Amino acid sequence: MKTKKVAIVGASGYSGEVLVQLLLNHPHAELFAVTSRSNAGQTLAQVFPKFASHPKSKTLRFVEPNAELLAKQADVVFLALPHGVAAEFAVPLNAAGVIVIDLSADFRLKSAEVYKEFYAHDHPAPELLKKSVYGLPEFYRDEIKKSLLIASPGCYPTSILLPTIPLLKAGLIKPTGIIADSLSGVSGAGRKAETDYLFCECNESVRPYGVPKHRHLSEIEEQLSLAAKTKVTIQFTPHLIPVNRGILTTLYLAPEKHFSTAEEMVALGEKISACYAKAYANEPFVRLLEGKSLPDTKNVVGTNVCEIAWRLDARTARLIVMSAEDNLVKGASGQAVQSMNILCGFPETAGLV
Amino acid sequence: MKTKKVAIVGASGYSGEVLVQLLLNHPHAELFAVTSRSNAGQTLAQVFPKFASHPKSKTLRFVEPNAELLAKQADVVFLALPHGVAAEFAVPLNAAGVIVIDLSADFRLKSAEVYKEFYAHDHPAPELLKKSVYGLPEFYRDEIKKSLLIASPGCYPTSILLPTIPLLKAGLIKPTGIIADSLSGVSGAGRKAETDYLFCECNESVRPYGVPKHRHLSEIEEQLSLAAKTKVTIQFTPHLIPVNRGILTTLYLAPEKHFSTAEEMVALGEKISACYAKAYANEPFVRLLEGKSLPDTKNVVGTNVCEIAWRLDARTARLIVMSAEDNLVKGASGQAVQSMNILCGFPETAGLV
Amino acid sequence: MKTKKVAIVGASGYSGEVLVQLLLNHPHAELFAVTSRSNAGQTLAQVFPKFASHPKSKTLRFVEPNAELLAKQADVVFLALPHGVAAEFAVPLNAAGVIVIDLSADFRLKSAEVYKEFYAHDHPAPELLKKSVYGLPEFYRDEIKKSLLIASPGCYPTSILLPTIPLLKAGLIKPTGIIADSLSGVSGAGRKAETDYLFCECNESVRPYGVPKHRHLSEIEEQLSLAAKTKVTIQFTPHLIPVNRGILTTLYLAPEKHFSTAEEMVALGEKISACYAKAYANEPFVRLLEGKSLPDTKNVVGTNVCEIAWRLDARTARLIVMSAEDNLVKGASGQAVQSMNILCGFPETAGLV
Amino acid sequence: MKTKKVAIVGASGYSGEVLVQLLLNHPHAELFAVTSRSNAGQTLAQVFPKFASHPKSKTLRFVEPNAELLAKQADVVFLALPHGVAAEFAVPLNAAGVIVIDLSADFRLKSAEVYKEFYAHDHPAPELLKKSVYGLPEFYRDEIKKSLLIASPGCYPTSILLPTIPLLKAGLIKPTGIIADSLSGVSGAGRKAETDYLFCECNESVRPYGVPKHRHLSEIEEQLSLAAKTKVTIQFTPHLIPVNRGILTTLYLAPEKHFSTAEEMVALGEKISACYAKAYANEPFVRLLEGKSLPDTKNVVGTNVCEIAWRLDARTARLIVMSAEDNLVKGASGQAVQSMNILCGFPETAGLV
Repeated sequence: MKTKKVAIVGASGYSGEVLVQLLLNHPHAELFAVTSRSNAGQTLAQVFPKFASHPKSKTLRFVEPNAELLAKQADVVFLALPHGVAAEFAVPLNAAGVIVIDLSADFRLKSAEVYKEFYAHDHPAPELLKKSVYGLPEFYRDEIKKSLLIASPGCYPTSILLPTIPLLKAGLIKPTGIIADSLSGVSGAGRKAETDYLFCECNESVRPYGVPKHRHLSEIEEQLSLAAKTKVTIQFTPHLIPVNRGILTTLYLAPEKHFSTAEEMVALGEKISACYAKAYANEPFVRLLEGKSLPDTKNVVGTNVCEIAWRLDARTARLIVMSAEDNLVKGASGQAVQSMNILCGFPETAGLV
Repeated sequence: MKTKKVAIVGASGYSGEVLVQLLLNHPHAELFAVTSRSNAGQTLAQVFPKFASHPKSKTLRFVEPNAELLAKQADVVFLALPHGVAAEFAVPLNAAGVIVIDLSADFRLKSAEVYKEFYAHDHPAPELLKKSVYGLPEFYRDEIKKSLLIASPGCYPTSILLPTIPLLKAGLIKPTGIIADSLSGVSGAGRKAETDYLFCECNESVRPYGVPKHRHLSEIEEQLSLAAKTKVTIQFTPHLIPVNRGILTTLYLAPEKHFSTAEEMVALGEKISACYAKAYANEPFVRLLEGKSLPDTKNVVGTNVCEIAWRLDARTARLIVMSAEDNLVKGASGQAVQSMNILCGFPETAGLV
Repeated sequence: MKTKKVAIVGASGYSGEVLVQLLLNHPHAELFAVTSRSNAGQTLAQVFPKFASHPKSKTLRFVEPNAELLAKQADVVFLALPHGVAAEFAVPLNAAGVIVIDLSADFRLKSAEVYKEFYAHDHPAPELLKKSVYGLPEFYRDEIKKSLLIASPGCYPTSILLPTIPLLKAGLIKPTGIIADSLSGVSGAGRKAETDYLFCECNESVRPYGVPKHRHLSEIEEQLSLAAKTKVTIQFTPHLIPVNRGILTTLYLAPEKHFSTAEEMVALGEKISACYAKAYANEPFVRLLEGKSLPDTKNVVGTNVCEIAWRLDARTARLIVMSAEDNLVKGASGQAVQSMNILCGFPETAGLV
Repeated sequence: MKTKKVAIVGASGYSGEVLVQLLLNHPHAELFAVTSRSNAGQTLAQVFPKFASHPKSKTLRFVEPNAELLAKQADVVFLALPHGVAAEFAVPLNAAGVIVIDLSADFRLKSAEVYKEFYAHDHPAPELLKKSVYGLPEFYRDEIKKSLLIASPGCYPTSILLPTIPLLKAGLIKPTGIIADSLSGVSGAGRKAETDYLFCECNESVRPYGVPKHRHLSEIEEQLSLAAKTKVTIQFTPHLIPVNRGILTTLYLAPEKHFSTAEEMVALGEKISACYAKAYANEPFVRLLEGKSLPDTKNVVGTNVCEIAWRLDARTARLIVMSAEDNLVKGASGQAVQSMNILCGFPETAGLV
């Protein structure tokens, strides 16, 4: 299998760091360039001491980002940049035929208007929106194979979409009234020097934020609407909790068919079970929990796995679905590498297990 | 003001420890007895080194619990015992005319049947159920004054009832479809030597548990039903998060009157604001947050305060209410002391600020 | 007892926050001014939501610092400012006869040369060095009473000096070869927006820093030299650990008199015990641990207490002394209030228990 | 390369869990048996949900430990058992010619008397002491190759021996007066249901323990004595800090040759540097830090690497050496696998990078 030459633009943040880790150890990728304005000139070992035992860490140096140069040298470029900035690189790289896997929000939406509503500035490259594919492999595997521009999903969206899309597609839940209550580790805020994310401000603290209209709603609702074939509006409340990594999402859903007797509950449970099994039994990175198990972030941190469990509540006639993932792996960099694997024809789990 | 002689039965758990702290420093209470089977014979200073600077800590020794003796010596007895066991002490103490403030679930419900449904054993003293008062001072202040048996509320119930009862009473929200998503610190599980609560099992972990039918539902629904004057069934999902203390609850509520225009939203907002102000503006231990502030457990830990904030979501026509409290103070021992203050005619904030 | 009018300059950092808390609740102090360039105009309740239940929190607003105005209005001014900056306020306030309690390093040393060596700039007000008193009440109580300028000790120094000074004064340990290994919570770094102190950089991490010449060495060695009546040079290694508050110091000391037999060890132990008892048995804020107890930061956090325990090691003929304190209370703001109490003739424990 | 059939006895503790993880993914080992009295009958996926995505996790079941059966089936058996118990398995397995890699303390000492002094019971199989090899690959690689019984070192010993042995062997430091101050994550205490290790007892807490005579001293001093060719007695103070994994050790050492001038310090520094380079430049799992870098547990957690940095202190004429490792990997299971690799002729880094 031919090795691909891979670069990471914006490699000094938390997602960038995980990308470096995954790509340094990827059997079919050669990480040849990492960029960062603030760290230009330093080696990988200097910026990330934990990678210092890797042979490449003392020779590979951070450089200033240069789209032109990357366009000539790279087969694949990962963009781990803020929204708005990512597009500046995606445009010339796409024009040059380079595969771009963008971890920002710039190409996740189909509509430039919705982008402006949620991100408060004009879309920087609306003409690319129809070329991009939403990089959720479990649902867009075929499209990913044929695309040059992958918009890798956000961390919250992944934790919400994986449990919800199969149920919506199967018509098992109502597309209305969906509530997603999410808890995220602090790395989700990025490696930003802001007092809000200091150790003493986060430790021994739990708090909601961005209530009621978080930016990620835009891509979540777009994807849910596509799955439901009708416009879906959801309630989403993110919370910050004192762990480094991990997202736990609890979803409150209304079954399409009301159940009240024990028999109806069993019958509905079998349908849900079959629906999830059909969607995920063969997926390497979705784990359907069995028996009394419930998701726990500590069981997925450091992996590309999203755990899912569900319960029917006879008292309220509601379906509760819970998911856990590592926000930096399945919620960001691992999923991005999964897309690269699919797109480049590598085994989908290469470098991810 | 005459000092009351006070005892704590079951003083070696986390709630017991906070009770000790509060009562050692209470201006009108004399803590004269602390009981614990496992620590009998040891001084307060030996069991709780952090109280060792208090003059009483080296002379007050833990003793075996003895209801008969306490009935003779105590004015007030706090029970910090498991459900089922608390009643064994409450019965003789109540018969002897001693004030009992019970932190267990034994006397929180009016119905012995519901108790059995949720606690899986017969109620140990059903005849006392009609004598007990639910010790939520903000709503039962007058009843507390006249009672000898206070059933101090659970930690989750307090965090859910304080934000919800005023809205239900005012008819501002529907009594149906209520969802409470709660996050609790690990002290909520008690000082039990179980592997599930070891540091390494909780740190860097977030997990739901007790889904979908947690025991606290019984008292929550009973109180909400009383407020709504109709039977209320709610959805409640507790989660364990890696902090010592604190509960953060996010409530998803449906306004009774639908709103769709901006004017309707403003009008509804004013009603909610007025409703909360009427209920809590003069309450010393409920803090209504203003402006952009949202609850954060770090702002209430160590205090008897419950913080509340709310948002109307125009996109979903829903009301989101968030609360934060210290599960061991307002959610347990602080609230119990608040009840004692009311019952004994002390200033309600005595020993709590 | 006449209430004193008190102000805090630099009240928005972690020490400032604890000062606000202590002074808001102090029986003999009236906190009338808090300054902060970045928060000027905001109320206490806005900057510190956790104080929002205090009646004064919604009326007392942060102002720009103004030494001239404070000189006219204040009886006591606490300076919680960076070194170098504190002197700018201390000079005019001292000239105006206002009591100044400085939490910075500016007036802790007697020598302007040593100051320059350790702080890398000229001392900003060398003429005040002879007026200032080192605010360690256990050893400078009489001097504090007569001074207008208190240099409140650093957090590391307090944790090292309290266990060591009595032994040096009594000639029980050698003044040479002292090693202090200290572990500090992250609040010791201040509320600074630096990536090094982000939650994800500190959580699940332990690291030494400032090896081998930390700034606090200067005041530690000056005080130890005064106690030993000979120049003392020590080894000091600070480490950053993932807790909000608390310092744990382990000291490695050589007894002046070598011991090898069991009898000699017992005899030496009795001397050490007597030495500590003499120094601290009546001190309200030093707790000598007994029996098998060892210091634990969780037993002192939130209090003005420093815990001390010691062990003789027959195998190495060394004395190990361990201390624990809250870096923001006994290590900073609590100790500063203790000095104010002494200086103003208040009970020494006023507002501190 | 021929795959070896491997079993783990006592696989449900923290070291056992890491062994499972490493061996499930080892290219030359086939994990065919895991034993645990308490989990017998359950699959790997049930006991460790985080391994549930591994194909073997749903078929491999925990069984009761059976030395006889293992003796017939296994090529290599890892013992992750308490001291005293490990020997019960080591004896029959060794007799049957099976490779035993023991993670307990049972075979680390050469002397049954010292064992009894530190472990308070007779050595259970003294005749095996001369057959066992101390499994510190950096110093016993040749012996490991020829042995059937590897006594894998303890976590604290590894963090102390790796930085110290080369200096002692080179005669660069005195064998007297060595002080090791160590900070360990809570997993070092094992997965034991004891209140001391509950989340709320460890979080926001730092404490020394086992002062002054910790059991690990016995193997540390034996190994240091061998390196120094004279009896070495050291001072060792372990502390418990609130992280899951990681040990940070700070060593206070006296250079054999006193230095006082800048030239002498530079000269000595060069010797130390050369000594460490000679010992470790080609070691895959020891990382010598350069420039201003100091060890940080977060850079080694999850890896088999031990980081080392050092500083000469001109003020005290002392050498400070600091190390960081993952107590469960290089301090336990990773190092055990490293020994297996060496012994079985696999690449030493197989399954460890």
